[in-house]
Amino acid sequence: MTPHPAQRIDHVAIVVADMDASIAWYRESLGLVVDSDELIHGDTQNVRLVFLTPAAGSIGATALQLLSPIASGPIGRYLAEHGEGLHHVCFEVDDVAAATEQLGDRQTVPFVGGKGRLCSFPEGVPSNVRLELVQGVAS
Amino acid sequence: MTPHPAQRIDHVAIVVADMDASIAWYRESLGLVVDSDELIHGDTQNVRLVFLTPAAGSIGATALQLLSPIASGPIGRYLAEHGEGLHHVCFEVDDVAAATEQLGDRQTVPFVGGKGRLCSFPEGVPSNVRLELVQGVAS
Repeated sequence: MTPHPAQRIDHVAIVVADMDASIAWYRESLGLVVDSDELIHGDTQNVRLVFLTPAAGSIGATALQLLSPIASGPIGRYLAEHGEGLHHVCFEVDDVAAATEQLGDRQTVPFVGGKGRLCSFPEGVPSNVRLELVQGVAS
Repeated sequence: MTPHPAQRIDHVAIVVADMDASIAWYRESLGLVVDSDELIHGDTQNVRLVFLTPAAGSIGATALQLLSPIASGPIGRYLAEHGEGLHHVCFEVDDVAAATEQLGDRQTVPFVGGKGRLCSFPEGVPSNVRLELVQGVAS
């Protein structure tokens, strides 16, 4: 039994250099539509964060998230070191703090990310995977 | 208008070195369950391909796909060159051949991949993203 199972894959994220060009590509090539478009400031974020979903997507569809730096921060450093590409996969859970601890990480403190939701990036995930946890409503 | 829009994100894929250990980790840490587990032979594949879904997931939920080489082939080469990690994101479309061409790729020929479905990995996708297209039923 896993007390805090993943409910669904919330999104998969790509770091991009030119956000407007990327939005245009996914709109024109795959028919995706912009669900949200936020600028998140602060030294630990400083990111433009865009969720795209299939136009056909019902509520709850897994989204594509595009991330682009707006100032120095973790996404800017990632882009400088690794270039553009797939960045992380995010699972929705009922309780981010408890689910983070369930993954063996007792140090990482959840924070409020895109769409005002509580999230974390737990340490110790295998296979070099950046994995995010998110819960539906920020507490 | 995009004639062949993406219907949904079908799966996000991770290349792993130790498939059994990876399945165990996602089962125990996130409560995912094995939806399918296939060995796909042939020089262009030679891969063990496992779909995991949230136990809570309804039909149509976006899956996590784990890929591990079973002999020499593209996934074995990827693992040797890049190590484990996020590998690709897959969108479901109504017509893989037409959607591949819509992305500007007139060369790539669709093939039958996991679960017997027709798929392609179009060339020319921006931001270093490996993007797969799949259609529900192989033609």
